[in-house]
Amino acid sequence: MSFNSFGHLFRFTTWGESHGPAIGCIVDGVPPRIPLSEADIQPWLDRRRPGQSRFTTQRRESDQVKILSGVFEGHTTGTPISLLIENEDQRSKDYSAIKDQFRPGHADYTYWTKYGIRDYRGGGRSSARETASRVAAGAIARKVLEHVLGAPVTIRGALVQMGSHAIDRSRWDWAAVEQNPFWSPDAAIVATWEAHLDGVRKAGSSTGAVIEVTASGVPPGLGAPIYGKLDADLAAAMMGINAVKGVEIGAGFAAAGLSGEENADEMRMENGKVAFLSNNAGGILGGISTGQDIVVRFAVKPTSSIPTPRKGITKQGENVEVATKGRHDPCVGIRAVPVGEAMLAVVLADHLLRHRGQCG
Amino acid sequence: MSFNSFGHLFRFTTWGESHGPAIGCIVDGVPPRIPLSEADIQPWLDRRRPGQSRFTTQRRESDQVKILSGVFEGHTTGTPISLLIENEDQRSKDYSAIKDQFRPGHADYTYWTKYGIRDYRGGGRSSARETASRVAAGAIARKVLEHVLGAPVTIRGALVQMGSHAIDRSRWDWAAVEQNPFWSPDAAIVATWEAHLDGVRKAGSSTGAVIEVTASGVPPGLGAPIYGKLDADLAAAMMGINAVKGVEIGAGFAAAGLSGEENADEMRMENGKVAFLSNNAGGILGGISTGQDIVVRFAVKPTSSIPTPRKGITKQGENVEVATKGRHDPCVGIRAVPVGEAMLAVVLADHLLRHRGQCG
Amino acid sequence: MSFNSFGHLFRFTTWGESHGPAIGCIVDGVPPRIPLSEADIQPWLDRRRPGQSRFTTQRRESDQVKILSGVFEGHTTGTPISLLIENEDQRSKDYSAIKDQFRPGHADYTYWTKYGIRDYRGGGRSSARETASRVAAGAIARKVLEHVLGAPVTIRGALVQMGSHAIDRSRWDWAAVEQNPFWSPDAAIVATWEAHLDGVRKAGSSTGAVIEVTASGVPPGLGAPIYGKLDADLAAAMMGINAVKGVEIGAGFAAAGLSGEENADEMRMENGKVAFLSNNAGGILGGISTGQDIVVRFAVKPTSSIPTPRKGITKQGENVEVATKGRHDPCVGIRAVPVGEAMLAVVLADHLLRHRGQCG
Amino acid sequence: MSFNSFGHLFRFTTWGESHGPAIGCIVDGVPPRIPLSEADIQPWLDRRRPGQSRFTTQRRESDQVKILSGVFEGHTTGTPISLLIENEDQRSKDYSAIKDQFRPGHADYTYWTKYGIRDYRGGGRSSARETASRVAAGAIARKVLEHVLGAPVTIRGALVQMGSHAIDRSRWDWAAVEQNPFWSPDAAIVATWEAHLDGVRKAGSSTGAVIEVTASGVPPGLGAPIYGKLDADLAAAMMGINAVKGVEIGAGFAAAGLSGEENADEMRMENGKVAFLSNNAGGILGGISTGQDIVVRFAVKPTSSIPTPRKGITKQGENVEVATKGRHDPCVGIRAVPVGEAMLAVVLADHLLRHRGQCG
Repeated sequence: MSFNSFGHLFRFTTWGESHGPAIGCIVDGVPPRIPLSEADIQPWLDRRRPGQSRFTTQRRESDQVKILSGVFEGHTTGTPISLLIENEDQRSKDYSAIKDQFRPGHADYTYWTKYGIRDYRGGGRSSARETASRVAAGAIARKVLEHVLGAPVTIRGALVQMGSHAIDRSRWDWAAVEQNPFWSPDAAIVATWEAHLDGVRKAGSSTGAVIEVTASGVPPGLGAPIYGKLDADLAAAMMGINAVKGVEIGAGFAAAGLSGEENADEMRMENGKVAFLSNNAGGILGGISTGQDIVVRFAVKPTSSIPTPRKGITKQGENVEVATKGRHDPCVGIRAVPVGEAMLAVVLADHLLRHRGQCG
Repeated sequence: MSFNSFGHLFRFTTWGESHGPAIGCIVDGVPPRIPLSEADIQPWLDRRRPGQSRFTTQRRESDQVKILSGVFEGHTTGTPISLLIENEDQRSKDYSAIKDQFRPGHADYTYWTKYGIRDYRGGGRSSARETASRVAAGAIARKVLEHVLGAPVTIRGALVQMGSHAIDRSRWDWAAVEQNPFWSPDAAIVATWEAHLDGVRKAGSSTGAVIEVTASGVPPGLGAPIYGKLDADLAAAMMGINAVKGVEIGAGFAAAGLSGEENADEMRMENGKVAFLSNNAGGILGGISTGQDIVVRFAVKPTSSIPTPRKGITKQGENVEVATKGRHDPCVGIRAVPVGEAMLAVVLADHLLRHRGQCG
Repeated sequence: MSFNSFGHLFRFTTWGESHGPAIGCIVDGVPPRIPLSEADIQPWLDRRRPGQSRFTTQRRESDQVKILSGVFEGHTTGTPISLLIENEDQRSKDYSAIKDQFRPGHADYTYWTKYGIRDYRGGGRSSARETASRVAAGAIARKVLEHVLGAPVTIRGALVQMGSHAIDRSRWDWAAVEQNPFWSPDAAIVATWEAHLDGVRKAGSSTGAVIEVTASGVPPGLGAPIYGKLDADLAAAMMGINAVKGVEIGAGFAAAGLSGEENADEMRMENGKVAFLSNNAGGILGGISTGQDIVVRFAVKPTSSIPTPRKGITKQGENVEVATKGRHDPCVGIRAVPVGEAMLAVVLADHLLRHRGQCG
Repeated sequence: MSFNSFGHLFRFTTWGESHGPAIGCIVDGVPPRIPLSEADIQPWLDRRRPGQSRFTTQRRESDQVKILSGVFEGHTTGTPISLLIENEDQRSKDYSAIKDQFRPGHADYTYWTKYGIRDYRGGGRSSARETASRVAAGAIARKVLEHVLGAPVTIRGALVQMGSHAIDRSRWDWAAVEQNPFWSPDAAIVATWEAHLDGVRKAGSSTGAVIEVTASGVPPGLGAPIYGKLDADLAAAMMGINAVKGVEIGAGFAAAGLSGEENADEMRMENGKVAFLSNNAGGILGGISTGQDIVVRFAVKPTSSIPTPRKGITKQGENVEVATKGRHDPCVGIRAVPVGEAMLAVVLADHLLRHRGQCG
């Protein structure tokens, strides 16, 4: 029921605004006796960190995480883990110009209508800066999965489309993902995306993207029908990331165009194990994991805050042309990749503990 | 935390299997003093009811709902409303042939891996028969919305694609929706769909669909960031419907291909009111409703239970060709239209009460 | 967040009013593959059933429970178990006299102030009849405990005080509990209680009671600090039973008068196991079970509905003398014994599953 | 479901250990536009702060609270409020002697059995230091109550019994409470308590207490039957405070000894308003507030950590005499008074918002 908590047995609660003193989260329900230190969390935060290439916001944040509780002598104690990340590079005055303006396509307007008050500095609570907390919680979720299962679950993400430029899936190479600033699994498209993004930036515009995140090594049986389905929780997890407008599992929307024979993943016994001959299900049937790879895609809209003037209104009810000057990602989808991975990790960790609770 | 409950302040909990004696749900948190009788619920159930055309399953269920509690002298009392729908036309013996078989693409297998026990009769708990409870809860949610807001919220759904045949949106006519067995808003495509579906049925196959559900008259301010976002809850609501593989809000996946200028819905003051010049956001920004129409689409995969034999396995770990004989919808997406409407209604009712709780 | 659900992983939701067609509950989160039939539940309901002696209400209810879902071929499936108990002996006209009156000490008035509508027939939702659902859920909880632990947890209750007449604890004999209509563990006090209760009835009055419920065989480690403490959940469970005004664990209020040396239960190793030299803690330290017997007591106020006229008011705001004619227990505490046992069982089952979820 | 969160719509989540760098909490669900600063919270923390008289622990903590989020330009924004209190006076080496020992009556043992790991420094997470977070959350709850109701709810607490020395209720004077180090409403008993406590301290012992907390100005209608009853939530709230072993509402356990006529609070119309002629109900009937004062009492056991050696065991399973050297309150009940007030405030705030959500 809490508005700022996610998950049930493995549960995190985030707090903080873009231009406050700090952001952070509490991760609750973590099993005890898992080795954990800041060094387990920091690398994942570093992947999401802004300012690492010319293609992301130039805000400079070191995003150093501190563990304030829940860990004793290098191990989790089963009590809540409080994580804190200080904000370092706020430039609130960038926002004084739009203090009374609502940017079209932005949460400015809806926060105002809902709460009657708005922290206009950098988007306040609606800023994507909050996703650093998700990434930190996701790092702990990965540790939980490995600890409980006895082997790591491989959770990876990639950008599969930028603007209208989609990758060629036949060239998919996970190794490539870490070798370009876009998390592209298709090395050949990188130059196209660079050119596209430079053009977008120069035009004072922005562009959208599609991200795919996958998990390998997930045991069958996770997810609890009817209202704790794994795919439903994943849909909420991804749709709740800033700027996301669509989520699909496995074949997703394309499944609508398939025949029953094409779509249903056939099964065979191979060496005494169940093998699927395809994965249109994206690893989930009836809301429960099948043991195949979990495959989730989500669409990120183009950043709403752009320098190009757009028609907006003010708090006082006047028409205005809004041009946003702050530092923004021209393609917020890029930095959503590690966030999507993190959300996949937390959903899986929660469902693993819930499944263990009910089914042993 | 409950596996079979949905929502928070407005919350329903469903129970029952395809071939048990009955199904039903408890609807909790309903405001008191709302006029309510079975006659307010039955028409919505009738829309979802099977056997109404040759294009849906021939199982004959009258789906008569009974209110067992929570209503006194024609009004809600604020206490839980228990609804019961008897199962009438079970033919469990249809399923004896697949008692030990796992149908490819079906939840048979995952229920078995999760629980180690499986009610094989008609899919048991995984059957789409459960969605009757959702529709009943949705009918009450509509009453709640109207009661609290003082005016009805118009919640409507339509099939916008069957197989690979999408409607022409320029021909959209809500009146048409009630005049064909497919809930198509495009009268011109009905003949195409009929032919497609007859072909599918004769081929022993099945086909997928895309459904669009919308809500007009939703006030701005509903939805609570960060983890109670309206779009995240809608995504979970729709993805949790049987056979759904994708969900999108507003422009959805197409937003990835738009520029920032195209995507962000511009705003103007018109007659003292805020007007949006487009609705790519689908009525939601930052997880909060804008006051525009809420627009949600979801993709339904083709029915997995088909007469055409497919490669599957048995409980005993043997390869087998599975051909399903029971009565099934060749396009389960058709009957998902009223279910999608219902889920939209319950999410809105819950968020309306939650918003009133926090913000008054 | 649901108003009518109790528990988290093991969770039940009740519905129904005293004079509606039926009452019932949904029990969710039950582990799969537990043998279960109505015969496992009925004996516990029979213990709570009214009309079994001249000392309880003369309402005649057979309280036959039906399982409507969640059980297949004699075993739980892991899906929600719906239980239904029909109401048989409603005499709503008994209540027409107090239709517009608020009985002092009764929930009549508060339901009216909260909801603005009131089902006056037999107390409606506020009736202790609802506790039959708790007892049914408790029966399933007992099965869960035994199934998961591999050995039954012994959960028992007794009346330890009626009016001002407390038992002599030195005469405690669990065997006696089943041999008198009061669940007294002290056979010697039964005659006193009979005389007291006959006097109370003849005087048109009612009397209170104190109940003690215990659980043996509870493993150490159940309960989750800080806000999922076992004793906190037990306190809520017992205080929520109709007419309960106090709850204590172990030494309870008497602990306030003890010294630190007297109160703290000393520990010794005995045959390689931890032994406690006393049990002032009632089996719970820091909100977590110690492995000792769980000991909970709760106080039940005298029934508010009495034939003796008392000063009350009407809906219309007039002073009135209220005399209740319906059939009521002169000491509602007697029938609270099996209810207290049931609530102890459900709290333990929930915490066992939650503990298994987090800690394995 | 979260283990470290309390409440539903008004919800707080705490973190931190006695000897970690800091403790704190997140308060979620706070209505927007409430004036709030540290100055609104600090006075309540100062009341709970240790080291203010010779009768409490000599640990020196300034307990300065910092607001890290959720407040903008002096007003709540509706987003989560993160509060942080640094630990200043840890003396972990005090605890090295008992590193491997389990103190009788202490949570040492149960944390170990549950989690298999234990932060032995000052009790770790089980320390009463955590209650500072509750007091901070309670301060915000008071603001919420006043803001929503338009008038403050008066929430007060007092110590009504220390050891076996109970106050004379006929001398009750709220003004006296602030004028002695024990929060006694009976000035005449203060000398007795001083002597008692000095004796206890010199004997290396400790003593228990009973606290009473009340709320005036609570509107009728708060609390939601059947499993969201106001008294059930209060019972959980108080029983969950460190060292509490019993909770009662209104007449509490004494109600068991009353007759129906004595116990039921009669009602009269007075100047057009409902008046009750007594308050045995403690302001709650059927789990819903009546509008009378809410009256809750709870019993606190004597501190388990005492210098007098007691029989305990070690992690290694050896018998040992445990004598605790750290700085402890000889009567932890004294500092529980502001904690009980805070828990009463948070329960009321949560129920007020929940009631507004369902009933408007």
